[in-house]
Amino acid sequence: MNWDRFKKYNYEFKELEFGIDISRVNFPETYYSEMQNRVDAALENMDKIEKGAVANPDEGRMVGHYWLRNSSIAPDENLKNEIEGALSQIKSFVGKVHSGEIKGTSGVFSHVLIIGIGGSALGPQFVNQALMNPRGDKMDIYFLDNTDPDGIALTLSKLDGELGKTLSIVISKSGSTPETRNGMLEAISAYEDSDLKFADHAVAITGEDSKLSQFSKEGQWLEEFPMWDWVGGRTSELSAVGLLPAALQGIDIDAILQGASDMDVATRNKNISGNPAMILALMWHYCTNGNGDKDMVILPYKDRLMLFSRYLQQLIMESLGKELDLDGKVVHQGIAVYGNKGSTDQHAYVQQLRDGVNNFFAIFIDVLNKGVAFVDEVEPGQSTGDFLNGFYLGTREALSGNDRESITLTIENVSANSIGQLVALFERAVGFYADFVNINAYHQPGVEAGKKAAVSVLSLKTKVWDFLKSNEGQSFTTEDLAEKLGETKNCEIIYKLLENMLINSSKYVSKEAHKPFFLSSYKYNT
Amino acid sequence: MNWDRFKKYNYEFKELEFGIDISRVNFPETYYSEMQNRVDAALENMDKIEKGAVANPDEGRMVGHYWLRNSSIAPDENLKNEIEGALSQIKSFVGKVHSGEIKGTSGVFSHVLIIGIGGSALGPQFVNQALMNPRGDKMDIYFLDNTDPDGIALTLSKLDGELGKTLSIVISKSGSTPETRNGMLEAISAYEDSDLKFADHAVAITGEDSKLSQFSKEGQWLEEFPMWDWVGGRTSELSAVGLLPAALQGIDIDAILQGASDMDVATRNKNISGNPAMILALMWHYCTNGNGDKDMVILPYKDRLMLFSRYLQQLIMESLGKELDLDGKVVHQGIAVYGNKGSTDQHAYVQQLRDGVNNFFAIFIDVLNKGVAFVDEVEPGQSTGDFLNGFYLGTREALSGNDRESITLTIENVSANSIGQLVALFERAVGFYADFVNINAYHQPGVEAGKKAAVSVLSLKTKVWDFLKSNEGQSFTTEDLAEKLGETKNCEIIYKLLENMLINSSKYVSKEAHKPFFLSSYKYNT
Repeated sequence: MNWDRFKKYNYEFKELEFGIDISRVNFPETYYSEMQNRVDAALENMDKIEKGAVANPDEGRMVGHYWLRNSSIAPDENLKNEIEGALSQIKSFVGKVHSGEIKGTSGVFSHVLIIGIGGSALGPQFVNQALMNPRGDKMDIYFLDNTDPDGIALTLSKLDGELGKTLSIVISKSGSTPETRNGMLEAISAYEDSDLKFADHAVAITGEDSKLSQFSKEGQWLEEFPMWDWVGGRTSELSAVGLLPAALQGIDIDAILQGASDMDVATRNKNISGNPAMILALMWHYCTNGNGDKDMVILPYKDRLMLFSRYLQQLIMESLGKELDLDGKVVHQGIAVYGNKGSTDQHAYVQQLRDGVNNFFAIFIDVLNKGVAFVDEVEPGQSTGDFLNGFYLGTREALSGNDRESITLTIENVSANSIGQLVALFERAVGFYADFVNINAYHQPGVEAGKKAAVSVLSLKTKVWDFLKSNEGQSFTTEDLAEKLGETKNCEIIYKLLENMLINSSKYVSKEAHKPFFLSSYKYNT
Repeated sequence: MNWDRFKKYNYEFKELEFGIDISRVNFPETYYSEMQNRVDAALENMDKIEKGAVANPDEGRMVGHYWLRNSSIAPDENLKNEIEGALSQIKSFVGKVHSGEIKGTSGVFSHVLIIGIGGSALGPQFVNQALMNPRGDKMDIYFLDNTDPDGIALTLSKLDGELGKTLSIVISKSGSTPETRNGMLEAISAYEDSDLKFADHAVAITGEDSKLSQFSKEGQWLEEFPMWDWVGGRTSELSAVGLLPAALQGIDIDAILQGASDMDVATRNKNISGNPAMILALMWHYCTNGNGDKDMVILPYKDRLMLFSRYLQQLIMESLGKELDLDGKVVHQGIAVYGNKGSTDQHAYVQQLRDGVNNFFAIFIDVLNKGVAFVDEVEPGQSTGDFLNGFYLGTREALSGNDRESITLTIENVSANSIGQLVALFERAVGFYADFVNINAYHQPGVEAGKKAAVSVLSLKTKVWDFLKSNEGQSFTTEDLAEKLGETKNCEIIYKLLENMLINSSKYVSKEAHKPFFLSSYKYNT
């Protein structure tokens, strides 16, 4: 594009085997100095976070994910010991699993079933795929990450006959996440159906004295690993949540931690040009006007990194998508994140990126090492990997050529070390960006509204069901029912519940269909 | 939310077991009448498309995906016979594969390897996962959908020792898509490494006389299936591209076709309220101001439908993301699409949807049948599926409660029939929307820019390589090289190529590192 700008704004961090190129974002030369005060404040506040400040005031919590990869910076000896203790516990447990000292009813554990949702699944899913090696992995990993009975059955059907060699990991900090609790109850039942005792195949990762902790202790599960209130779900990849599955798979978790720790050192640099996370956060701010005006499209040119965008969707959107700022002002912040992988996505939505609505900026991720191909050349002088490189560079040119901005991250390899780096890079960039726009990046108040509404729906379901049952044989329209139950505000939900019962409890609930649909009536019959 | 509005704007199509609720989009009562002229025009133009008009003027092509599921409406007898012939060919071939009459070197085919990208992979991936049944499927399916050597090796490593029972399907309409060609060459080599002849395990789906067609004929592959120029990649799911893999998996492809055909009938309805695709297109238009002002977030509450958003990303963004309208005016159209599945995504980015930047509308997909759980109740009176239902309804309420608009599609089951319906619904909605905003939905000119740029990169790679090689032992900086090659405009690309060679051709290319990075020099040595 512009070589002089590239020479100036392509930053390479040789010791990290990492580079960030922002020459294709059209910020003015004055941007850094305009932002310098905010940069200084963000660095200072980050320093406080690392020293144990209560950075999540709503929940009165410290934010300690940076300590996980360097326990020596934990604010007190106790926390340091807990972090190191958990790491030893993971290694010791995994050693015993791999050696067969701890095994399932049918033999040495060869599969892992992770039961968790959100931050308890997205990190492990990303790392599992990024570092997968079917020929060498010690164990393969399956996930129950939803309260979908059909989805649960589908996953468990892949483990037919194998549950006796499957180690289940139930992950929930609070220990009361309903989706995870349901997944666990379904799994317990599936093990029982195979005449297996779940407890003999299960470990928990959870907060001290949580419901799950109590449940696993009472049931005498194999082991319990800690989750601390100072680690948020979306930044828990380098706690037991991410490290235990990775270690079971056979990944070098020390290398993940080292990568993250090394990136943390770089992202403490007070100079913008020496701090890759600050550079990244500044570009997010520039591209979105500090306002979420543009979406962030993640385009790694590497199949293994396809789930990175889903991981970042949570990390970024749940952290930055906030109604209020720290002063209580309504701001409706956030940055929408999506993407899969290149060059695959060039045959999907890159048409729109290049030609269509200019409502995004792209983050290309280039992995220099293309891996070993089966054939040396697919055309004279060109390998399969050269094409991948060509498409990456070509698409980047095509976007720039049409005034679409992009950032490029370059790493040498997808490795435990570089994955740790990437996780740490984006965690820190999110923290800096949140500081720029004055929001709490570490809570998720909006999730509560949905949960509360869901609880109301569930209790309304019971009301509807009980009423129909106690009036067996009598038919009611939605409006009848709503009136009888004193729930006239909730006609629509009642209608949806009735339609659901009709399909899922067809043994008991039947319908007399009328047109329009809301005149139909429903009854309970045995 | 508002029962009266729901009564008015929840449309149910009982014969399709399908419903669309737009009561949570805040369009005014006058919207339908305001749009009536455009609706009429869109219906009329769609009728012309179905009758064989050249709807893709740039490429001089008819747009015939609607004929695929009802060959009797094809504009001439010849096309009708081709469609029917291809369907018979698929069924006959699949029958022979399942019976073992056609088999691999090591025995009856039990795996499928699809080599294709974009429209030749996204539909098959979506349908494979949506209708997967590990206990009953006749074959399992793997994909090579990129020119990533490492990704290819990863996928093939999952088929270690199994290639002799693996049927490869190479899919490319033009027969010259480089990613697919490369995937094929890598696969050929992998089969050879296992002492297997690729041709004995391969079929092609491609256009008449394409390079791939010639190649497969010369190699005497098992079979060749047609792809016609009047079927676009992103609307090819109901051609051999989607039907062959589905039939091999054991899916009832007649039911898929029937579902699509039934939905097509409904979406020919001249009355808005009887035409689900028109309703959908109108809402897209309202929500985005006919301008792409908002993103479309796809939230199916069903694990099986997780890949639907990726499928729709292509269908919608590649169709609608256009620079010019049909009159040649610069419009930069499009709608960004992303999403995964609920309730999983509630623990990821729904925080931002509810509280953050209001730059989206959601499409909920509710599947009434929750499937059979292992446990009846996870709490008194509540099943795992009740929770899924509760979270869906709760999140919907929480979004509406904060003025975030949503559309809800309801289907009874995920089945071959309903998948056919969904595909047909969105294909038609895209066609209507494109008509509203006066664009060609059936070409992808923006993709060409990236391809051309990629070709330049590849040829520049050869230039750089040849120059270094012919000056063996001599060191050059990026700028030196660019000058020698007469490519001073391409310094950045040359630098990227050199860094790539350094890692991937480390046997030949070495670097003398200097700071800043662009002072480093490179040389070729044997």
